[in-house]
Amino acid sequence: MARVSQEHLDARRRQILDGAAVCFARNGFHATSMQDVLKEVDLSAGAVYRYFSGKEELIAAIVGEVLNSVRGAFEEAARQSPPPPPDELVAAVLGRTLAARENLTVDGRPAFPRLVIQVWTETLRNEELAALLREGYVSVRAAWSRIVEGYQDAGMMRPDVAPDHVARTMIAAVMGFLAQQSLFGPAPVDVLRDGLRALGTMRHEDTATRGSQLG
Amino acid sequence: MARVSQEHLDARRRQILDGAAVCFARNGFHATSMQDVLKEVDLSAGAVYRYFSGKEELIAAIVGEVLNSVRGAFEEAARQSPPPPPDELVAAVLGRTLAARENLTVDGRPAFPRLVIQVWTETLRNEELAALLREGYVSVRAAWSRIVEGYQDAGMMRPDVAPDHVARTMIAAVMGFLAQQSLFGPAPVDVLRDGLRALGTMRHEDTATRGSQLG
Repeated sequence: MARVSQEHLDARRRQILDGAAVCFARNGFHATSMQDVLKEVDLSAGAVYRYFSGKEELIAAIVGEVLNSVRGAFEEAARQSPPPPPDELVAAVLGRTLAARENLTVDGRPAFPRLVIQVWTETLRNEELAALLREGYVSVRAAWSRIVEGYQDAGMMRPDVAPDHVARTMIAAVMGFLAQQSLFGPAPVDVLRDGLRALGTMRHEDTATRGSQLG
Repeated sequence: MARVSQEHLDARRRQILDGAAVCFARNGFHATSMQDVLKEVDLSAGAVYRYFSGKEELIAAIVGEVLNSVRGAFEEAARQSPPPPPDELVAAVLGRTLAARENLTVDGRPAFPRLVIQVWTETLRNEELAALLREGYVSVRAAWSRIVEGYQDAGMMRPDVAPDHVARTMIAAVMGFLAQQSLFGPAPVDVLRDGLRALGTMRHEDTATRGSQLG
C-alpha cells in the first residue's frame, strides 16, 4: 500500500464529508443511501468506508463539526469582558459558519441552511442524532448564558432577566434565520445583525413598570 | 340524506384537520398516507373525502389556517399607534397559536412545533406548499414591517434600520423558538418574551458611532 500523507487523508475526509452534506441537504438523511454519497464524491466504496462506517457516522461527523465550531466561538466570546455586542457576535459567528460552507450548493443555492432543517427533521426520529444535537444545544446555551451574564455585569443589559432566556432567544433567532434562508432563499447576515441591533436600541416609556413586573 | 347542521359540518371538518395535523406532525407529510389519516380520525373514506380531496388539500388547509390567523394578528397590531412592544406582541400571538392547538399531541408532547418543522422539510420538495408558505411569509413580513415603522414613528426604535430587517429578525426568533420546542421539548412563551424584552433594553456605550456606520 502506498504511503499517503496526513494532508491527503484530511483532504479525502473533507471531500467525503462535503459530498455527504450535499446529499443530505438535497434529499434528507433518510432518503439518502451510501450509494448516493459514493456517487456524489466519486470514490469507491472501499475508499469511503475506510473513513466512515456509514450514514450514521457521516451525519454525526457533519453535525459535530458545526456544533464544535459554533460552541468554540461562543465560549471564546464568553471569556471576553465585556463580550462583543449580540448583533456583532451573531453576525460574525453565523457569517463564518456560512462562509466555510459556501462552496456546497444544491440547485445553485447554499446547501447549509437546507442541511440544517433536514437534520432537524431527521432528529425527530433518530435518537442518536437527537442526543448529539441536544448536547450541542446545551453547551451553546450555557456559553450564551455566560455571555449574557457578561452583558449584565457590564451594565449593558438589565440584570433582572434570566440569562438562559436571553440565550434561548438568541439561539432561536439564528435557528429561525437559517430556516428562513432554506425556505425563502439566501439573505445576507447583515439582515439579522441590523434587526438585532435595532431591537437592542428600543426605548420603552414604561421600562421601569415593565421591569418591576418581571419578578 | 339526513340534513346536517353547519355546526356539525364545521366540527367534522375540524376533527379531520386536527387528526391530519397529528399524523403529519408524527411522521411528516410524505410518509403519511390518507389511510393513516382515516385511522387517526376514525371516519370512513367517504366521510373524509367529502371535505378534502387528499393530503395536498389537508396540508394546505392546515398551513393556511395558521398563516391566516398569524397574519391577521400582526395586521391588527400594525393598525395600532404605536403598536404593542415586540416582546408582548410576539408572546401574545405565539401564545394564542400554541394554545389553540394544545389538545393536539404526539407522544404526549405538543404536536404543533413538530408539525412546523415537518412542514418546512416538506416545503423543500413540494412546490405548491412552498408557494403557500412564501405567500404567508411575505404577508407576515409586510405586516411586521409596518409595525416596525410604527415603533420608529413613535420614537421607540432607531429610524436608521430597514424595517424589513427587523421584521425578518422577529419572524426568525419565532421560527427558531418553535424549532427549539420541537427538538428539545416544550418551553413557556415567557422565555422568548423575556429574551426579547432584555434585548430591547440593551445599553450600548457606542450607540452613536455604531448608528453612523449603518448608512
